[in-house]
Formats: sequence, C-alpha cells, structure tokens
Amino acid sequence: MADMLRGALIIGQSGGPTAVINASAYGVIRTALDSDCITTVYGANYGIKGVLDDRLFIMDKEDRAELDKLMYTPSSALGSCRYKMKDPDEDETDYRRILEIFKKYDVRYFCYNGGNDSMDTCNKISKYMKKAGYECRIMGVPKTIDNDLYGTDHCPGYGSAAKYIATSIMEVARDTVVYDTGVVTIIECMGRHAGWLTAAAALANIHVRSCDLIYLPEMDFSMEQFIADVKRVYEQNGNCIAAVSEGLHYADGTFVSEAKTSATDGFGHAQLGGLAVRLANTVKSELGVKTRGIELSLLQRCAAHCASGTDINEAFMAGKAAVEAMLKGETDKMVGFECERKDGVYSCSTKLFELSDVANYENKVPLSWINDEGNDVTEEFVKYALPLINGETPMVKKDGLPDFASLKRVLA
Amino acid sequence: MADMLRGALIIGQSGGPTAVINASAYGVIRTALDSDCITTVYGANYGIKGVLDDRLFIMDKEDRAELDKLMYTPSSALGSCRYKMKDPDEDETDYRRILEIFKKYDVRYFCYNGGNDSMDTCNKISKYMKKAGYECRIMGVPKTIDNDLYGTDHCPGYGSAAKYIATSIMEVARDTVVYDTGVVTIIECMGRHAGWLTAAAALANIHVRSCDLIYLPEMDFSMEQFIADVKRVYEQNGNCIAAVSEGLHYADGTFVSEAKTSATDGFGHAQLGGLAVRLANTVKSELGVKTRGIELSLLQRCAAHCASGTDINEAFMAGKAAVEAMLKGETDKMVGFECERKDGVYSCSTKLFELSDVANYENKVPLSWINDEGNDVTEEFVKYALPLINGETPMVKKDGLPDFASLKRVLA
Repeated sequence: MADMLRGALIIGQSGGPTAVINASAYGVIRTALDSDCITTVYGANYGIKGVLDDRLFIMDKEDRAELDKLMYTPSSALGSCRYKMKDPDEDETDYRRILEIFKKYDVRYFCYNGGNDSMDTCNKISKYMKKAGYECRIMGVPKTIDNDLYGTDHCPGYGSAAKYIATSIMEVARDTVVYDTGVVTIIECMGRHAGWLTAAAALANIHVRSCDLIYLPEMDFSMEQFIADVKRVYEQNGNCIAAVSEGLHYADGTFVSEAKTSATDGFGHAQLGGLAVRLANTVKSELGVKTRGIELSLLQRCAAHCASGTDINEAFMAGKAAVEAMLKGETDKMVGFECERKDGVYSCSTKLFELSDVANYENKVPLSWINDEGNDVTEEFVKYALPLINGETPMVKKDGLPDFASLKRVLA
Repeated sequence: MADMLRGALIIGQSGGPTAVINASAYGVIRTALDSDCITTVYGANYGIKGVLDDRLFIMDKEDRAELDKLMYTPSSALGSCRYKMKDPDEDETDYRRILEIFKKYDVRYFCYNGGNDSMDTCNKISKYMKKAGYECRIMGVPKTIDNDLYGTDHCPGYGSAAKYIATSIMEVARDTVVYDTGVVTIIECMGRHAGWLTAAAALANIHVRSCDLIYLPEMDFSMEQFIADVKRVYEQNGNCIAAVSEGLHYADGTFVSEAKTSATDGFGHAQLGGLAVRLANTVKSELGVKTRGIELSLLQRCAAHCASGTDINEAFMAGKAAVEAMLKGETDKMVGFECERKDGVYSCSTKLFELSDVANYENKVPLSWINDEGNDVTEEFVKYALPLINGETPMVKKDGLPDFASLKRVLA
C-alpha cells in the first residue's frame, strides 16, 4: 500500500522549451488534479524562479478544455528559466527560501520538467529537503530536444524536433533541385555537444535521398575534409545538401562558428549561430558554386504543427508516471523511457532513474553510429530514431491556425 | 460547340517553386489526360528550357497513384528555370526552336505555370505562334508565393506560404516569452518588392497577439523609426517580435540588406538575405537587449506539410480551368481567381485574364492596407488573407514523414 502523503504539488518547467514540454506538464497536472492525495496543483512561473519569487499559478482554477490544449501547445506554458542553483554547501539562501514556500503552501510533491541542469536542480533540492527533515517527494520529468539525458532511451521533445528537421530537409531538398543549375545548401541544426538533432537529417533519406552529408559535434571538424566532401558530392550529383550541428568544432575545441558573438547564456555556454552562413560562404569562395545557408533556429524546437504523435503521447506519459511514482512513495528520481525495437515493432515504457546518475551527464551519439568518414550516421541511428517521429499531432486548428492553450494563470 | 483541336499538350513550370505548384501542374495533367482531344501530355523538364532542349517527360506513362501525390508534393516536380526569353523582334532563335519542337510532337496546347516573368514568356510565345501561323493554344497558370500577379484576387502558392509564416510566428512567439528576460526577435520573410508574405505575419495575431511590428517594402524603411518602434514595444511588453520583408529599402532605394552579397539571379534581381541578422545586430547595439534574427528562407515556400487546403484545391482548380479553357478555344490568357468575402463567407472562382495585361506588372499591397506608422497592416488585409490559409493538406505520411510523388520521368 502506497504511503498516503497529503499535500500540494508544484510543477515547474526549465531550460529551453520544446514542442511537447507542455504535454509533459499536462501529464503531471492532469494526474495530480485527479489524485485524492494532492490537495492543490500549482504551476511555478518561470521554473524554480517562480518558487523563489512566490509566483505560483493555481492549476485547479484552469478550465479543463483549455488545459487539454497543452497537448499540442509548444513552449513552456508556465514560463521557464535558466537559473543555476548554487551548491547548498556554499550558499543555502535559495534552498531555505524554497523550503519556506513549500511549507507556506504545504507542498509535498515537486515535479521539475527540464534537461540536464534541471535534473541537477531537482537533485540538490531533494537532498536539502531530506537534510532539513521536510517530507517532500521530488521527481524529474525529462525534456530536451537535444536528447542528451543519461539513462533514458530518449527524451521527450527530441522526436518532434527530429520530425521537423527531417520533414524540412525533405522539402528543402525538393526545392533545391528545381533548377538545372546546382546549389550547395547548408542546414544548421541545434546541438552544442550532442549531435542527435543533426543526425535526424538522416531520416530525410529513408524514402528518397535528401541529405548528402551530416556532420556531428561528436567528431572533430575538418574544413578541408568538409570542402572535399561537398566538392565530391556536387561534382557527382550537381547538387549538395549538408546538415551541420551548431556545435561543430575543430580538433582544438574551437567552435567553427566562433567569434560570431561573445554573448553567453545563463550557464556560461557560448551562444552559437551563424554557422550555416559561414560554411556556405566558405564553400562559395572555395568551390565557386552557388550556396545557401539555412539555420533552423527556434523553428526546430517550437514547431508544434509538425510534432510527433509518439513524442506527444510519451511526453504526457512521462508526466503522468512522475506523479504516479511519487504517490507510490518514490522520490529523488527522474522518469525515463525504456524502449524495444524488435522486427520493426517499437514499444516504450517508463522507468525511474536516480537523479544523481542523470544530473550533469551529457549523453552523446555513440561514435559507432557515425560512419568512418565522419560525414553521415549509420543504419543503427535510423533504427533508433525512426519510431520516435511517428504519428501526428492532435492539434486543433481555428481559422487554419493552431488553437493554442491560453491559461488564466491565477496567482496563489 | 468548342473548336476540336487535336494534338499534344506541354506543361512547364517556371520560377521559384511553391508548396502547391505541383497541384496546379496536376490540375493541368489530370484534365489533359482525361481529355479526348489531347493526344499526349508532356511535362517540360526545367520549364521552357526543357522545350528548347527537347527534354519532355511523357505524363501518360506515369502511374495515377504517384501523380495523385502531386497534390501535396512541394516544389516543381518537372524542374523549373529562370530563363528570360529575348524579344522575338530582336532574336527569334528560341522561338523558332520552340515551333520546331511543337511541330515535332504535334503540340497544340501549352500551359506555363509561373509568375510574372513566366506570363511574359507565355505571351511572347503566343504572339510568335500566331505570327508563324501555327495553331496552338497557350495558357498561363499563375503561381507565386509573392502574390504579386496582376488581375487575379491572389496567386496559388501564397496561401500556403502565408499559413506557414503565420503558424511559425505564432510558435516562435510562444517560444520567445518563456523566460522572464526579454528578447527582440526579427523574422525575415521573402518578397523583393511586394510585402504580401511579410503582411501574413498579421494573421498570427488573430487569436493572440504574436507579432508586434510588420514592415513591408511598399514603404520606405527608416532605421531610426524602426529602432524607436522596437524600443517602445520592448519597454511596454518586455519582448518584441518584428516581421520584416527581405526587400526593405531606404528612401533612396538602397536595400537595407545590401552589400551582403553581390550575386544576382538570372533576371538581374539582387540576391537578398541576411537582413534579419543585420537588423538584430543593429537593435542589439542600439538598445543593448538580447536579439535573435530568423530568416524563414526556403522553408516558407516549400513547407508542404503546413500547406493550406484552400490553396491546394485552388491551385488544382487553376490548372484544370486552364486546360478546360483551351479546349473551349481560349488562348493567350492567364487563369486567375475572382473571390468574394461576404459576412465571413469566402467563395472563389476562376476567370481568364489577358496575358498582355498580366505580364511584367507587379501587384503590391495597397498602401491603404498599411497603417499610418508603416509598422503594421490593417484589418482589410486580414479579411483578405485569412480565407486563403484555411484548411489542411491531404498529405499522406509514411513512417511519420511526407510520402512525396516520385515520378518515372520517361523522356519522349
């Protein structure tokens, strides 16, 4: 029999948004609203900052019909943050404040929906609450288009971004061959250290070859090899499409796009971008051919209209499983996926991972899934990723446009 | 009783592709295949160049099921060109060659699917054939995401691009407000001289305000005013999204994006691009805020996965009407649309326009549809454009990805 802990729940969203992060949040919210143990469901505005600032939305006051739309509403409906919590051994201020808010609202359940850094936040809060002797169950719900969380087969958000990337490359490929004069098109995908998103370009090749070359940040980049690759493909096909990761770097670690901007995000990551145009210009001057650089930019992480039905359902499932696990007494864990791909049949179930194992570890594309030339991925990757992009969004349209959720956001 | 002219038909596609140009081609092909008068249906490879080069695909040899997929396959399935025909009074070479090919295949029907320049090509061929005494009916079928063809209410291709732009801006708008730190996002849309595509950003505002500022090339651009507008919105909302046309220019005619590249396309148009990043950088240095530039690039014209159902059906209807009109004896015309928007009810029917009226005239956004400040469009524009983005694509997916047409392309 589960340990019946009565109290409120807070759900927070953190890090860069995805097309399905709200589906996970809804999995948490819906399950919590339906639970007898959970007295009130709060949504923290701007992630953990909403807890620190005492800005909590009462989810019980939202209309069910509007909450239902979270299944296909992209981006973080509650607001997100990139707030790095200090180590509690160095500075307890934030943790004391969180405990104060938890006590104020009798919060006994806390779900944090985010990536690596969020799992670290979760883990630190969990340890502090234990030390403070405050009974509270804490669960991480993964999200990241980067797909770089440890342990889980994949991360909610990745499938939808991968579907958008593959679909867009298939479409761009059709567009770039219309003239009898060739063009080299460079398509830049997100991914600082992990190449999962860029690897998704390979999915564009499963029906008809659409993407010729794929470069991931798991390998050191060589401009000479890149130019030689493009030259070979262009001479052979009269056209060339290459997918490149924003995080491409030379052997010495320098980002290929570096010196573009010196701005950094809250965690000290360099803000990358402009790589596609940079590579397109280099190809143009080296090979004297027409080029075009396309940066998929934010579009790849918010394109809910092209989200994967599988991804949406799994994202909801992860949120639901998080609450169910907490109600059963689990804490200090992250919900992840365990999947089987056998004879073309894909199955996915949730599994709990230790937060301490997950936090701050980046899961990259296995080197064995990258070809010897470092300019494509293998069939293993395609087998892995293809089931994740299957199925369509249940998005409802109004006047031909998405009818996104519009929450009341009633503050506690 | 219609004049029963027996002979073959050639369909060619020209200019930049769209998400629905193949739906128009299919309207022509299907109707021609079903007609008793039309003996063979040829598709010209790379537009008029395919006629000059004697590269014609026999459409009668294609599978019906594969041809059906043209309804949702983006880009020019037959290949396109940007080939400017000389004036026949200056140089008859090309025209003599076209006549030779028409005679060789007994071509009595010619459909050209394109924009302004293509209608000019059509008109010149039509005049030459008349002069040469060769009986041949010639019909233009409009396409252009730019929506700048004279006479017709709108152009096939525009609705789908507009839908993609509005949808993407709605999604990006959700993405850019997730943090409590603001950002100015500049979204660059295509359109050298006509601002129809950029104006479509206003459709993103019909449910929830998503786009704050809209700048069209119909108005002279003032960087000072732009920075002041952005500053005002950012200070008011803590965030700002602006849609800008690639063709923005200062009062002296200089493109804002100029000096970016000196390359030109086949018609001597300057190749624009990089405006979004340029404006984002200017805002960043002037206002000291976080900025992001997003160029929708080719994505906006090939995103068949987000095409408008209305646009697809009308594109097919235009192709069909072209063949039906030719079978009735019409020639030297362009099929266009005549629409009614009354009490929220939209209706659209085809109408024939004189090619000589259409050729080389650019239809721009009426100045009365732009607000006094020159940073938004009026309700009139929304009333005009909203029906055009309605309905969804009938696209069939395989493995979660578009199942595009793959033609055999059997050469005559």
